[in-house]
Amino acid sequence: MKAHVYVTLKRTVLDAQGQTVADALRRMEYRGVADVRQGKYFLLTLEDGLEQNAAQAEVERIAREVLTNPVIEEFTFRLEA
Amino acid sequence: MKAHVYVTLKRTVLDAQGQTVADALRRMEYRGVADVRQGKYFLLTLEDGLEQNAAQAEVERIAREVLTNPVIEEFTFRLEA
Repeated sequence: MKAHVYVTLKRTVLDAQGQTVADALRRMEYRGVADVRQGKYFLLTLEDGLEQNAAQAEVERIAREVLTNPVIEEFTFRLEA
Repeated sequence: MKAHVYVTLKRTVLDAQGQTVADALRRMEYRGVADVRQGKYFLLTLEDGLEQNAAQAEVERIAREVLTNPVIEEFTFRLEA
């Protein structure tokens, strides 16, 4: 089973990296992009035989306690069989 | 419309950052994670009135030409209305 975890800065936190990408796209004359936010992506490969519920709980715990800085970041994740 | 772009190192490229996270999880006694790969996540907010086909083409072009280093990285993306 695989878990995809997406960590992004909270809406209220300035994303300088994302703004730099957005500015660069405008200068390079790419059209149609109003805003860019940049985050991190983790692909966790889980051990075989882990049950769906246990996997859900463990990935949620890892994302919350290790992969995310709760002061400025938030996360979402999804499991893939 | 929003576009989610995920950029990861190619399978054949050593992901030292991901391995460090995996080692840390093991040392911290989190169970059930066999492997970690780390990548980047971009959330693009597209301008209103962009058609689905045009958006698809533009995001694909931006991901390929700007957000990804084709020598060592690959990308996937999805559009969200």
